Amino acid sequence: LCPPGLQPLCSRAQVWGRSARRHPGLLLAQSRAFSNNKILVELDEGAGVATVKFKSPPVNSLSLDFLTELSISLEKLENNRACRGVIFTSAIPNVFSSGLDITEMCGKSTEHYAEFWRAVQRMWLGIYGSNMVTIAAINATGGCLVALSCDYRIMADNPKFYIGLNESQLGIVAPFWFKDTFVNVVGHRIAERSLQLGTLHPAPEALQLGIVDELVPQEKLQDKAAAVLAQWLALPDHARQITKSMMRKSVLDRLVTHQEEDVQHFVSFTAKESIQKSLRKYMEMLSKKKG
Amino acid sequence: LCPPGLQPLCSRAQVWGRSARRHPGLLLAQSRAFSNNKILVELDEGAGVATVKFKSPPVNSLSLDFLTELSISLEKLENNRACRGVIFTSAIPNVFSSGLDITEMCGKSTEHYAEFWRAVQRMWLGIYGSNMVTIAAINATGGCLVALSCDYRIMADNPKFYIGLNESQLGIVAPFWFKDTFVNVVGHRIAERSLQLGTLHPAPEALQLGIVDELVPQEKLQDKAAAVLAQWLALPDHARQITKSMMRKSVLDRLVTHQEEDVQHFVSFTAKESIQKSLRKYMEMLSKKKG
Amino acid sequence: LCPPGLQPLCSRAQVWGRSARRHPGLLLAQSRAFSNNKILVELDEGAGVATVKFKSPPVNSLSLDFLTELSISLEKLENNRACRGVIFTSAIPNVFSSGLDITEMCGKSTEHYAEFWRAVQRMWLGIYGSNMVTIAAINATGGCLVALSCDYRIMADNPKFYIGLNESQLGIVAPFWFKDTFVNVVGHRIAERSLQLGTLHPAPEALQLGIVDELVPQEKLQDKAAAVLAQWLALPDHARQITKSMMRKSVLDRLVTHQEEDVQHFVSFTAKESIQKSLRKYMEMLSKKKG
Repeated sequence: LCPPGLQPLCSRAQVWGRSARRHPGLLLAQSRAFSNNKILVELDEGAGVATVKFKSPPVNSLSLDFLTELSISLEKLENNRACRGVIFTSAIPNVFSSGLDITEMCGKSTEHYAEFWRAVQRMWLGIYGSNMVTIAAINATGGCLVALSCDYRIMADNPKFYIGLNESQLGIVAPFWFKDTFVNVVGHRIAERSLQLGTLHPAPEALQLGIVDELVPQEKLQDKAAAVLAQWLALPDHARQITKSMMRKSVLDRLVTHQEEDVQHFVSFTAKESIQKSLRKYMEMLSKKKG
Repeated sequence: LCPPGLQPLCSRAQVWGRSARRHPGLLLAQSRAFSNNKILVELDEGAGVATVKFKSPPVNSLSLDFLTELSISLEKLENNRACRGVIFTSAIPNVFSSGLDITEMCGKSTEHYAEFWRAVQRMWLGIYGSNMVTIAAINATGGCLVALSCDYRIMADNPKFYIGLNESQLGIVAPFWFKDTFVNVVGHRIAERSLQLGTLHPAPEALQLGIVDELVPQEKLQDKAAAVLAQWLALPDHARQITKSMMRKSVLDRLVTHQEEDVQHFVSFTAKESIQKSLRKYMEMLSKKKG
Repeated sequence: LCPPGLQPLCSRAQVWGRSARRHPGLLLAQSRAFSNNKILVELDEGAGVATVKFKSPPVNSLSLDFLTELSISLEKLENNRACRGVIFTSAIPNVFSSGLDITEMCGKSTEHYAEFWRAVQRMWLGIYGSNMVTIAAINATGGCLVALSCDYRIMADNPKFYIGLNESQLGIVAPFWFKDTFVNVVGHRIAERSLQLGTLHPAPEALQLGIVDELVPQEKLQDKAAAVLAQWLALPDHARQITKSMMRKSVLDRLVTHQEEDVQHFVSFTAKESIQKSLRKYMEMLSKKKG
């Protein structure tokens, strides 16, 4: 199953897959970049580390295509024994990710809404349930769900960068598994207030609330992410993976058990005329801001 | 069903009810106070904001009458589409609320204990499950359960004002839903220690532990509460309400499912001679303090 | 059932048991020490306070013998109405406890692993579920599980002393009930990170993360523990005990319900050759450090 535009990833999988790991002599280089449309993956097999860079201009929206490519990239890395840790970051200056792509939820068919939501679920299940060590190097505004699903979050120390789950500002509702992920990071009280208000927190506040683990100057972000990842990789994989699974299993299982219900709930909510109106209004506001 | 002393509220409901909201021309004034014995409600329909003031001297104890009036007032506001947010505060200087009225639990019939406890449950279900934005403007000592059940807590910045759930100091036990509410605000550890010791925390400590969200000078408390409420009301109601319900549903459901069990448990515990003795001792201590 | 080496404790139980409490005239002294091999218990019946001192050189490892003696000592105290509170501390300078004794998990029979694990469970059920007030006076490095299971944790203020659950550094995994205990103290996020990394936190960091409740100078530790215990004992026992049980019941029940499953899981995991290899490696590293 190889959707158009993902050929490089797919052929890589065939060349670099399990057989590649068993026969490293087949590899042309230890470190090498492969790319598709919206996600750039740099894998350093020597270090066991991949950097997954978002490069979907203008704002790395979590569109259906973006989500699908991200999930496929991750699944390849997950199955690659040479990869033990992943850093997520953005290749676009001043934008990490704008979050869910509203155009995917507006004026489309219910089938489209369902397909989109399954792609959001798949991405979250992939990151939150990853056996690899996952680090978010949040080099600009946004991307709260991706970041919250990682093992560790480092953000560029700039009060002009924001992070948060702002669904309620758009008149929509973060699903229970966004909420569970958020609560597991910051606790019930902070999540309750932040989700109700749809707050986008400036970086210093995000640190104070525990949404991110540390702030570092922008120019040191990638080095710091690599250093933190190296610390985590110093631990034996097996015990760490079982421990991670023990911490996250109940929240992961809750979505897995209710996955199709959750899709149907999203579709029927999104298709409501009142919600469509609210989303159109929000998009108009955004386009005026830019104009 | 219109208990004596609540006529103003009830007639208001008939005049100002749903039909009033549909025909604002019928209203004589946009803002108007109505009162009963122990609760003063000021509703500003223009702003969509009600202030609920406790005025049951000497210490705003949560007596059966107080609780019943508070619940009826809230239910009226809940059903009034013109009201989107509520501020709880006290009309009595230096007292917010002394908490559960011990005289209702001492030397009375088991029927009375049951009626009292149902009134406590009803109040909590009303505030914790409210669709409105709820702000506690804690202008003096006390009132922890009401405050913890709100969306946001502002306390007068005075170390002589205290807040906490002190049941265990009286030899009685906070029920599981007080505990769940407390844990959802401050986390398991702080709740465990505070509930075991029945600590009344001075305002600065309450802030530090997360029992309240901010402290402001006494004279700015009401303005601050109004300003915070306005921020919350800037959000679309529907998404905020669903989000709030998602955060609180499991804790609310737990009481709803075990409501009658919880009443019976309270009654049989309270009716024990050892507990009655302990409560009498506590009341004697209180009356000596005053004398 | 009186295992060899525990005679003093057992005969004390017969002499000082329930009948002793009913006939205090039988007691030779109000305060008196009794000892066995690895645990020293000092009971001050006047104050209702016992001090349980770990004295199993060199490092107070939680060996099968140590755990059994600790559990028996605790069960005696639990059944002694004259004892309302316990302070856990170490009689060995610069060591509180090194945690689980790895030699019990390495190169032994599966029957031995099962017996060892049941002893760990028994100790935890005894401390975490104790009706007494439990205070950890952590006068040196280690002992995280014992400490986390107490009602209050005081640690000597020395950055050279460490505390944490470092299982994953050994290639093994803390069981779900260690995790539940940890989460109840520090919340999900801190537990998730600390357990994955198997971090041993220096005392100041342990305070900051909430792993311990306060730091005091080494020489004031025992006095401070006694003072804190006295505060807790000022509360009526019954209400405090019910409150404590309400806070901890779901976590205790989870192990009780899955106790034998948990033993079997531990045995089959521990008996794996890969785990045995990892433990041998860790022991070699430790012995090199010492050498």
